[in-house]
Amino acid sequence: MKSENPVINQILDAYKPIWSINHATSLMGWDFETYMPRKGTEERGVADSQLRLLYKELLLDKDFVDLVELGKKQEGLNDAEKGIVRMLERNITKQIKIPKELTEAESLERIRGNMVWRQAREKSDFKMYEPYLKKMAEIKKQIAEKIGYEKHPYDALLDTFEEELTVADLDKVFGVLTPHIQKILKKLLDSGSPFCKEISKLGKPKYDIQKVDELNREILTLLQYDMERFRMDVSTHPFTQAMDLNDVRITTRYEGTDFKRSISSTIHEGGHALYDLQCDQSLSVTPVEGASSLALHESQSRFWENIVGRSKPFVQLIAPLIRRKVSFAGQATDDELYLYFNTVKPGYIRVDADEVTYNLHIAIRYEIEKKIIGDELTVSEIPEFWNDRMEQLLGVRPTDDSQGALQDTHWSSGLFGYFPTYTLGNLVSAIIASKMRKDLQDYEENIRNGDFRPVREWLRLKIHQHGSVYAPKTLLKNTFNEEGYNPDYFVKYIENKYFGS
Amino acid sequence: MKSENPVINQILDAYKPIWSINHATSLMGWDFETYMPRKGTEERGVADSQLRLLYKELLLDKDFVDLVELGKKQEGLNDAEKGIVRMLERNITKQIKIPKELTEAESLERIRGNMVWRQAREKSDFKMYEPYLKKMAEIKKQIAEKIGYEKHPYDALLDTFEEELTVADLDKVFGVLTPHIQKILKKLLDSGSPFCKEISKLGKPKYDIQKVDELNREILTLLQYDMERFRMDVSTHPFTQAMDLNDVRITTRYEGTDFKRSISSTIHEGGHALYDLQCDQSLSVTPVEGASSLALHESQSRFWENIVGRSKPFVQLIAPLIRRKVSFAGQATDDELYLYFNTVKPGYIRVDADEVTYNLHIAIRYEIEKKIIGDELTVSEIPEFWNDRMEQLLGVRPTDDSQGALQDTHWSSGLFGYFPTYTLGNLVSAIIASKMRKDLQDYEENIRNGDFRPVREWLRLKIHQHGSVYAPKTLLKNTFNEEGYNPDYFVKYIENKYFGS
Repeated sequence: MKSENPVINQILDAYKPIWSINHATSLMGWDFETYMPRKGTEERGVADSQLRLLYKELLLDKDFVDLVELGKKQEGLNDAEKGIVRMLERNITKQIKIPKELTEAESLERIRGNMVWRQAREKSDFKMYEPYLKKMAEIKKQIAEKIGYEKHPYDALLDTFEEELTVADLDKVFGVLTPHIQKILKKLLDSGSPFCKEISKLGKPKYDIQKVDELNREILTLLQYDMERFRMDVSTHPFTQAMDLNDVRITTRYEGTDFKRSISSTIHEGGHALYDLQCDQSLSVTPVEGASSLALHESQSRFWENIVGRSKPFVQLIAPLIRRKVSFAGQATDDELYLYFNTVKPGYIRVDADEVTYNLHIAIRYEIEKKIIGDELTVSEIPEFWNDRMEQLLGVRPTDDSQGALQDTHWSSGLFGYFPTYTLGNLVSAIIASKMRKDLQDYEENIRNGDFRPVREWLRLKIHQHGSVYAPKTLLKNTFNEEGYNPDYFVKYIENKYFGS
Repeated sequence: MKSENPVINQILDAYKPIWSINHATSLMGWDFETYMPRKGTEERGVADSQLRLLYKELLLDKDFVDLVELGKKQEGLNDAEKGIVRMLERNITKQIKIPKELTEAESLERIRGNMVWRQAREKSDFKMYEPYLKKMAEIKKQIAEKIGYEKHPYDALLDTFEEELTVADLDKVFGVLTPHIQKILKKLLDSGSPFCKEISKLGKPKYDIQKVDELNREILTLLQYDMERFRMDVSTHPFTQAMDLNDVRITTRYEGTDFKRSISSTIHEGGHALYDLQCDQSLSVTPVEGASSLALHESQSRFWENIVGRSKPFVQLIAPLIRRKVSFAGQATDDELYLYFNTVKPGYIRVDADEVTYNLHIAIRYEIEKKIIGDELTVSEIPEFWNDRMEQLLGVRPTDDSQGALQDTHWSSGLFGYFPTYTLGNLVSAIIASKMRKDLQDYEENIRNGDFRPVREWLRLKIHQHGSVYAPKTLLKNTFNEEGYNPDYFVKYIENKYFGS
């Protein structure tokens, strides 16, 4: 990007080494989850923490901070230029508050804790992981204190992931969402809805991993991903990592049974990737090249995974591909496949949860994080609290911690405050779907025919192209005239889908 | 590593961010050749050049340079500590002499040139690549001038890859080697040696890539590689990249025919990897953790590829594995396989060359580099000069440049002065073999039985453990009592192998 303002150009030039460190640590993160030999962990930990420190040093370099200050005072900046200054200032302010020792401690703990978490999850041994989680929670509490907050220490961490998000916001969201979802779930289960009947002839048999990998790649082709800017690998916990706007990578997973999990992961991560892939290229190598927020990022993955990917026309579109690649699905009807993709069943695992129960999993994680950071719960109490709340909200109680409190990678990676953005993403995906259907008359017909151009283009124009030029709440206001993360659209979407309109 | 000298400890601490940038760019290099989506090239180029600049800035930071100066003045340092200071000083001196603009220009040109070279090689279109090579050669000449030299500008570049290596050294080496090899080659061809008869029933048919991949992995298991510190991927031009002592990666290649090429590449790169894998762990994350020099590195890969990998006992060892994985080799005798691995045939491609002709390929590249840097040859004259010299030395003339001057990645990557280390590596591998056989009485028997521990351990003790604590000539002197890269051992080894002892 070339600006007409010389100060902005200076900022962008000085930002290049900072961007480059980010590029490198992104690649290192991707590599750690995909291909890195296990025993390289210690040295990778050194490199990762050193580069994060270096990133911080460059970002907080007096000349650079002064330059950003100067940028803030410029008049006549356009939106992208204002966004650049806003993002840098936000980043600088956060980093200034967190002392070097804490950043380094967190980085090292992330590498160590993540390794132990993997082993603990395998052995379902929470005790083994507990001291590491304690350490990480302590670090996060210290970070929250350093960042500062008005009402709740957890607010400080929430804002890291989602600009201006607070406990008050989330208490309000879950206050509406949780009881509504509990009601819907009860009604579905009590009525013996066909959605609640497991299609075990599709979910139980072992699939051919290579064939389902081919199937995922066919679906990505249908969705028009450009494989020269994008790739898909395999990891335990699927994720998306953009190295830059022209190198965006997703991973998927192959457990060997219940093939919809693999397909849904692929479509989900693909949705994330599209946000970066459709960002305006002029924003490349600038502080505003990424998504506006995690919730908006998640709105994209959930839109594609659930609202498109689990819709009837989409299932009808991919049904013939599935029948070709999954031998035991060869005779399945479109309706059976649709119900298989949309089975509602309270279960232990968040990433396998259906659209109805998913946010209840998040509600529990939100409660735990809030209590841990607020000193209302200790780390050793997590498993029991987790299991109790699972029983209360979902009616199922995990029998071992690999199916409970050990299932997610987030805490071991220091991501306290991240989970709530998943629910916000779901809420925004329903807002988007509602607005989009008003604009695109042939929405369903296009999906049934495999023409995703109108949907992709709508998302590009309304959201993707802007990168993080606008803060999330501003984007929601400007583009959709919505104040915050209104849960009503989502409740309506679920009611419509499961009980008909 | 913890030193008893506080200055050395300070140096090692200050070196950590420098090391980390190296770690990151190593990973970026590996990724570029293996998995990176093609259209990420531009941004990867920015990140790579920015990180190289940052590396240089940190290395040349006044405080760090002063610290290294102070380290040099310390008394009572042990060999490892002296090595640390020596390596840093060498690196600093080189970098101080090369201005920032040249480093940046080379880095950008490397990314661009490499991309165009790939396409040019595919189309066998030297003209397409010529302007990029011209640019790179100009940059290298400027770098040579900046570094400085006593006799020949090429000396400055040679020393970058191999401490103290000069045109005078190499003229002497090739002065002995080239005529001897030409004589041996002529004798082999004229006598109708069984080594010169192509075994086309093994070399021509298409193999199953997945099966040969399994075969390569079985061979790596035989050779006792620890897959938790090591991995193998696929790239056009096989290479080894150590991210650190516990994360060493090789690539191999699968062209689909002539399976020995794939096996030999695997063993070759594995030999490189072993150097890093067997370095003393106390040297991890220090400036002396790598190999002493490129020639010594290459001596390891060539020792394993040729002296072990193409020996009769080794071929006998892996023959049953080959028969199981390569369908059309199912009936091949051990002797046929041995001759297949050791066929001598003047050909166009360096990486496919047999042990006899290989160094003639290097002789040509050495001549060209010397002349280009010495302004005795222009870039546009390269293809014809190349082909003429191929005809004179090997008796074959490439008919297109993809089989000629476009075959290697080195020039597009800015590696002028690198090729000669391949020949030096061959010479040292023969020195090693001669010394080792005197120490290890059961050498052949152990290989035939698949017991590589004595060989690995001998290499570890004599060479690997030291990392780059000693300069290459010092190591050769200390360990083998050899002055420089004596070509006589190699000539004797070849004569012995092909004409019997």
